[in-house]
Amino acid sequence: MAKEQNERGKQTILDFIRKSGRVARIDIANECNISQATVTTITAKFLAAGLIEEIARDPEEGESRRGRPRVDLKLRGEAHIVAGVKVANSSISVVLSDFEGKPLCKSRKNLKESVSTTRKLARKIGKSIEALCFENGYRLSDLSAVGVGIAGFVDADSGFVHWSPSLEQRNIDFGEVLRARLGIPVFLDNDANLAAMAERYFWHGVDVPNFLVVTIESGVGIGIVMDGRVYRGARGFGAEFGHTKVQLEGALCRCGQRGCLEAYISDYALVQEASVAGTLIAGDTQEQQVLSLFTAAQEMEPIAQSIVSKARRMFAMGLANLVNIFDPQLIILIGNQMQEGLIYSDDMINSVKSSIVRIDNTAPQFVVHPTGDALWARGAAVFALEMIATQSLKEI
Amino acid sequence: MAKEQNERGKQTILDFIRKSGRVARIDIANECNISQATVTTITAKFLAAGLIEEIARDPEEGESRRGRPRVDLKLRGEAHIVAGVKVANSSISVVLSDFEGKPLCKSRKNLKESVSTTRKLARKIGKSIEALCFENGYRLSDLSAVGVGIAGFVDADSGFVHWSPSLEQRNIDFGEVLRARLGIPVFLDNDANLAAMAERYFWHGVDVPNFLVVTIESGVGIGIVMDGRVYRGARGFGAEFGHTKVQLEGALCRCGQRGCLEAYISDYALVQEASVAGTLIAGDTQEQQVLSLFTAAQEMEPIAQSIVSKARRMFAMGLANLVNIFDPQLIILIGNQMQEGLIYSDDMINSVKSSIVRIDNTAPQFVVHPTGDALWARGAAVFALEMIATQSLKEI
Repeated sequence: MAKEQNERGKQTILDFIRKSGRVARIDIANECNISQATVTTITAKFLAAGLIEEIARDPEEGESRRGRPRVDLKLRGEAHIVAGVKVANSSISVVLSDFEGKPLCKSRKNLKESVSTTRKLARKIGKSIEALCFENGYRLSDLSAVGVGIAGFVDADSGFVHWSPSLEQRNIDFGEVLRARLGIPVFLDNDANLAAMAERYFWHGVDVPNFLVVTIESGVGIGIVMDGRVYRGARGFGAEFGHTKVQLEGALCRCGQRGCLEAYISDYALVQEASVAGTLIAGDTQEQQVLSLFTAAQEMEPIAQSIVSKARRMFAMGLANLVNIFDPQLIILIGNQMQEGLIYSDDMINSVKSSIVRIDNTAPQFVVHPTGDALWARGAAVFALEMIATQSLKEI
Repeated sequence: MAKEQNERGKQTILDFIRKSGRVARIDIANECNISQATVTTITAKFLAAGLIEEIARDPEEGESRRGRPRVDLKLRGEAHIVAGVKVANSSISVVLSDFEGKPLCKSRKNLKESVSTTRKLARKIGKSIEALCFENGYRLSDLSAVGVGIAGFVDADSGFVHWSPSLEQRNIDFGEVLRARLGIPVFLDNDANLAAMAERYFWHGVDVPNFLVVTIESGVGIGIVMDGRVYRGARGFGAEFGHTKVQLEGALCRCGQRGCLEAYISDYALVQEASVAGTLIAGDTQEQQVLSLFTAAQEMEPIAQSIVSKARRMFAMGLANLVNIFDPQLIILIGNQMQEGLIYSDDMINSVKSSIVRIDNTAPQFVVHPTGDALWARGAAVFALEMIATQSLKEI
């Protein structure tokens, strides 16, 4: 049929092989609803291009060992190596990944400043990737692409950053800056979108076509997966959750507007409230101060309790609004704050459930994924792999 | 290629013919990226099934009148006739539509009670359709299907109503009740979804793949169109906007929860606030009372002003949250309340704009579509047409 439909066929088959791990041609044809002849033609092209490989299947019990051995197809891990990078508030994490999405090695470097100039941040990212390659016997030129996740308003199509809390300047073609520095393709996206991508490939989102990822780090992020794809909005900067308003003319947010969810639940907001009330919160860094605040609340210190309780109720209200609007199957809560006793608590989830539209039907499921930076960086790697795969399919 | 892809090809071609009005085969092939041979085969099947027809194209100026005349294809209006029904708070509107979506005739009947039993409402809907048919020389058996839009939580796949403000009972298979009564296929959906469908087919959403429709009648509704399709959520009851929370532990809503947007801006909420403050609002019906409230506000009556101003700011906050989350190209505001001087005002839109995430990029566009029930009923008709078309394609 048409060229476009052929492209879609190729993508469908490659995705299905990836998702299956190992799979026979006949199963691809059946499951993808594509003729065996077409599957044979397309997978032959994939084999020739080195994107996939054949592996003999061990005969199953009872199966005859004679005759032509059955053969499975799988992605060829060595086809491409990519780097995935997560730029966080206080660290840069990098992972190298093969074409199967398998992590090869990873690193995490602390950042002294959470906000940098464009040049400085590009240099830090470049150095982190180069160091990880060098330490593990790769050259930068071994990489087919780099995926980068960063907080803020990022146009994933172009790599343009409208604004990021990690960058001093606004309106930077940061993808291009990194491309120029590294000399290989760079793909940039909002970090929560890439966390959603990681969930879809490796964790809770694997078999769930419609889910939301909500992240709390220094800011609040959201990734929306619909019909298996990350939703990025019409102007390309994707969904924004931290600056949805939970209070008319409410607390001042660092974005300059009032009543944003972040102004009630992010680290800086919590620390600030505590300091207003003169509550003693121990610790040098903001992160430590927030931890002591939560500890004090657990130890029933009244002001700490009041601050934490309000933050939880505000977060629950924001989450309930998302559930009402999207009616997702699953909400995945990501980040260290999502441990019981911090922002996350059973009460918080109950408060969400009591604020969502009541129908006599299964309520959406909540899953907590408190996790290190590996998930984020792997999401960035997967993004790079998808972009490279799409490119490769066009050339086949 | 595969059967599923063929189905998609057929759908693509039929959609394109519908959207084009009249179109030559060669243009279908080019625009849809489908081979000419396939277009010829598929359109021959459409012709045989009576879904489309050929019409000779008048030779364009300068074009030779000799040789084979060029032929366009168009939908065959008589292929199917459907009824579209909108159940509103105080009325039932019906439109009959042909397969091209052209309205043939319409009616509007007042409802004495805004809430009915399932049986009563089914009877009223049935009678309205039968009367309209009778008055215009159609028999019920001339109709291929009926589409019905109703407020509440409706599973569009099954026609199951979890809850509707128009029905006394919860959890009713209302689609089945209507099917049994009318003896023809009935398709049911949330009314705001169908308003979105009408916009996509006939008005502001025609060439816009990503837009939101926000409606205010007695309740607040939302329809989400993404990639050209109405988004209905994972549990099938679609997006809910009126019961998103705009105030933590705020005003009590008739749904039993607190702080819902509807509890601040819907007719009953406005009237109730006015009565609390003892503000005189003239009028017998709630609708009239709300109108006098807005008039009083325009005439600078302080309490009326305060009530209206708060309602507008709450509505603006809710709208801004939608914009932040969806980043749509376009927001279409539907309903009588959207006239200047009512909930809608330039100030309200400015207040939305000042609460959305600031990036140096074109802001989403707002369009107001204050409209009668015709739009809603036509959306319901279009829904029925889509369902019938899909069915017909399967049989071809």
